[in-house]
Amino acid sequence: MTNTQVTHIQIDNYGPWTVTPEPRREVDLQTMQSRLYADLAQLFGNRDGYIFFSRFDNMIAVSNGLDMDDHGLIQESVGNRYPVSMSLSVATGATPASALGTATEQLQEAGSAQDKGRREVLRGQTIDDEFRTETDVQLAHFDVDDATEKYTDQLNEFDTFIRIEQGYAALMKYMRESHDSLSFFVGGDNVIAVCPSLNRDDYQDAIDHVREAVDVELKVGVGRGRTPAEAGMDAKHALEHCRATGDPVTIG
Amino acid sequence: MTNTQVTHIQIDNYGPWTVTPEPRREVDLQTMQSRLYADLAQLFGNRDGYIFFSRFDNMIAVSNGLDMDDHGLIQESVGNRYPVSMSLSVATGATPASALGTATEQLQEAGSAQDKGRREVLRGQTIDDEFRTETDVQLAHFDVDDATEKYTDQLNEFDTFIRIEQGYAALMKYMRESHDSLSFFVGGDNVIAVCPSLNRDDYQDAIDHVREAVDVELKVGVGRGRTPAEAGMDAKHALEHCRATGDPVTIG
Amino acid sequence: MTNTQVTHIQIDNYGPWTVTPEPRREVDLQTMQSRLYADLAQLFGNRDGYIFFSRFDNMIAVSNGLDMDDHGLIQESVGNRYPVSMSLSVATGATPASALGTATEQLQEAGSAQDKGRREVLRGQTIDDEFRTETDVQLAHFDVDDATEKYTDQLNEFDTFIRIEQGYAALMKYMRESHDSLSFFVGGDNVIAVCPSLNRDDYQDAIDHVREAVDVELKVGVGRGRTPAEAGMDAKHALEHCRATGDPVTIG
Amino acid sequence: MTNTQVTHIQIDNYGPWTVTPEPRREVDLQTMQSRLYADLAQLFGNRDGYIFFSRFDNMIAVSNGLDMDDHGLIQESVGNRYPVSMSLSVATGATPASALGTATEQLQEAGSAQDKGRREVLRGQTIDDEFRTETDVQLAHFDVDDATEKYTDQLNEFDTFIRIEQGYAALMKYMRESHDSLSFFVGGDNVIAVCPSLNRDDYQDAIDHVREAVDVELKVGVGRGRTPAEAGMDAKHALEHCRATGDPVTIG
Repeated sequence: MTNTQVTHIQIDNYGPWTVTPEPRREVDLQTMQSRLYADLAQLFGNRDGYIFFSRFDNMIAVSNGLDMDDHGLIQESVGNRYPVSMSLSVATGATPASALGTATEQLQEAGSAQDKGRREVLRGQTIDDEFRTETDVQLAHFDVDDATEKYTDQLNEFDTFIRIEQGYAALMKYMRESHDSLSFFVGGDNVIAVCPSLNRDDYQDAIDHVREAVDVELKVGVGRGRTPAEAGMDAKHALEHCRATGDPVTIG
Repeated sequence: MTNTQVTHIQIDNYGPWTVTPEPRREVDLQTMQSRLYADLAQLFGNRDGYIFFSRFDNMIAVSNGLDMDDHGLIQESVGNRYPVSMSLSVATGATPASALGTATEQLQEAGSAQDKGRREVLRGQTIDDEFRTETDVQLAHFDVDDATEKYTDQLNEFDTFIRIEQGYAALMKYMRESHDSLSFFVGGDNVIAVCPSLNRDDYQDAIDHVREAVDVELKVGVGRGRTPAEAGMDAKHALEHCRATGDPVTIG
Repeated sequence: MTNTQVTHIQIDNYGPWTVTPEPRREVDLQTMQSRLYADLAQLFGNRDGYIFFSRFDNMIAVSNGLDMDDHGLIQESVGNRYPVSMSLSVATGATPASALGTATEQLQEAGSAQDKGRREVLRGQTIDDEFRTETDVQLAHFDVDDATEKYTDQLNEFDTFIRIEQGYAALMKYMRESHDSLSFFVGGDNVIAVCPSLNRDDYQDAIDHVREAVDVELKVGVGRGRTPAEAGMDAKHALEHCRATGDPVTIG
Repeated sequence: MTNTQVTHIQIDNYGPWTVTPEPRREVDLQTMQSRLYADLAQLFGNRDGYIFFSRFDNMIAVSNGLDMDDHGLIQESVGNRYPVSMSLSVATGATPASALGTATEQLQEAGSAQDKGRREVLRGQTIDDEFRTETDVQLAHFDVDDATEKYTDQLNEFDTFIRIEQGYAALMKYMRESHDSLSFFVGGDNVIAVCPSLNRDDYQDAIDHVREAVDVELKVGVGRGRTPAEAGMDAKHALEHCRATGDPVTIG
């Protein structure tokens, strides 16, 4: 059994801010968004959490190991250094998808993402230390087989990107609908999925689905841990094992 | 007629670096990648260019207004500040897609993306000032109609993300295949497309395609300019006009 | 009694790197140095430590609360994201100055700051949790009386800077020689000193010395805590008390 | 004859912001300040200017080559990405000190550094392109002789820092009072001075003064150029010449 703790991070009233009083320069928005994400990667990562940029104005973190004080400090630190503030909502659940569902609902109950008066919400509950276990988090690290040889070194870069993107779009939808998992593109040809307790057949099934749907060949290393950092590093080593053996699925 | 100058940026031998001697911590890779992108957003943006993160290890810039010296300085500045180096290849063409095709080919001819000996390649040709015009760049700024009301404030954040992502996957493929355009997700519910000289019907056609394919409703503001900064700001104002009038396509 | 844990951070072989193969652009060096410092401020700060930029290529941290694993992770994280690596040496002592003395010696024994073969040294010992107390760290936050009114709003900015700088140079030398304290300029008109267990008279003495030596009028708030973060925040509140009451020394 | 263009950059109402509503965490202030400086180093540097952190809340740039539009864009870019805004004032003059004097006065006339209502001031005049020459900027790059051997590898790091700091404090005061120059510590054992048209004897004189005042031995490379970037790189090469020949002063 996994027990994933998920944090939904939302920049407060961001859309209106980007066009007030006039549309702001895109390069500044891009710089600000990607640096905010980089900072959160460090703020969560230094506490053994993981965060994914997803839409940048809404980000999703796996936060097992962080308590509400940690979340409060992260919120304060961003408030001290950015022109925007952010709201955070934390929840756990039987699956990553249901945990996020609860987290999002708590945020929606506090007001709209574009509500001017809703600022720096901090809601939810984290897992008490006594209930945490070594298998709370399951992460799967996918990549595309021979992406450099088959795509990067052969195709127009955008056509390579299309292949990776179609593969990701198919995988993230399938993993959500069939396996209650949250899958995130993390650059290159890599996708990290936050999963409930799935087995080898489940992963093989997802790989088969993506091959059939969009003709992209994936492999996956799976890791478990008390924290996202442990599970993620475990998954990376499992993926290296796939590379070495040719096995499409390795459970770490 | 547009005359788009496109730069393909590739981190040298990045995949192997991320797992040598052992897999590096994901949060550090995420931090490094997103900060590199943020820096390039400023380095290109301060010269009125645009860059998109696409796969992070391979990025694509619209670089009208930058000459080869500018590219060299950007390459040097990154080399001075990051643990990785990057190669740059520049080209122009009748369409953004064909310009990028040429840029990628020049890079591929210099060696594989995972060739240990290929470092800091700088190739290609920029447009001489005398041939530059006010309509060289056409950028289209798409967003999703009522995304906050329909999705963000209603659904589990991952389900919102799925909608946005499926919309983007459909749009980027269609714009490439039907209109030789390069479309990039830039956060929230926004996509910026680098286009040849398309007209209102072309954009309406793309919006219709996405609605039919994945039931996501888009609108688009289109801008033109001598530089990406001008075209992009023009497009943003056009999109504001869509918001004000309800018109799904505004040509700035 | 204080029990200050001090970390000496040294960029490995930095001087030669800045001029190899040719002198690197100063703006890139400045950017890299100040971002490295900013990252270390977060990496130490998220663990309730403090770091001071001092010479940038050599930095000094108060690290009560961080163990050797934390130091190792900080070292690794910087190695993953910067073109340079750094060595860390940790020590404790009866005074901050003697703790730093030990830390520096450990580093010097491992090789010269410009030794090509000395990379990522990690040495020293941290305080076991059982021996940590609420008064381990004493920090003093100085600022200049009415700096805005007397200097910033009146003088050529460089002449203001001279006043602040001469005040700092006098204070840092005196606090080291008379009180075994380490004082760091932190911007504006602020100096933070890491002190052994000094009393009100000691601080009044330092303020008097600076007034007589360079005619700069200081006040100071003093804080104590188990960690630098606690002591530092305590000192800030004490300094606010000075502002409110006109008292030149407040012990928090 | 030099014709130095100097920009005084001041964070608006910064002091009060750092303690409102409560004192903000020092590590966040340090992170924000040093990143703002790093960004300005790139924003000015990409236009061949130089900026010095001096007090962080007040910074000084040599901005030959930047016009008022460039300054406006820098101001806007910072406003888009930071929780604070900044005011800029530009001036030229017979000496760097007098240029800065004018720049500061323009800012002071617009209101106090702690005036709540004074935000994003942008004042002054830049040099018309037609009046710019190859000798407008003279920069001198000082360093301490054998600093690694004599200090870094021998002394407690704070005692090394004291030597460097006392050397800097003596040099910056003397260069201002005797030579109308603005000298800035830039890390390690390096100081960069912005000078009027000084000659070899002037620099030898300053070196002699520092040796006599605080027993620190300096050498200096001097460069000239149309822009700070040119003059600064020229000075670096001149300093390398000092290192190679033992000559304490090299005019590039």
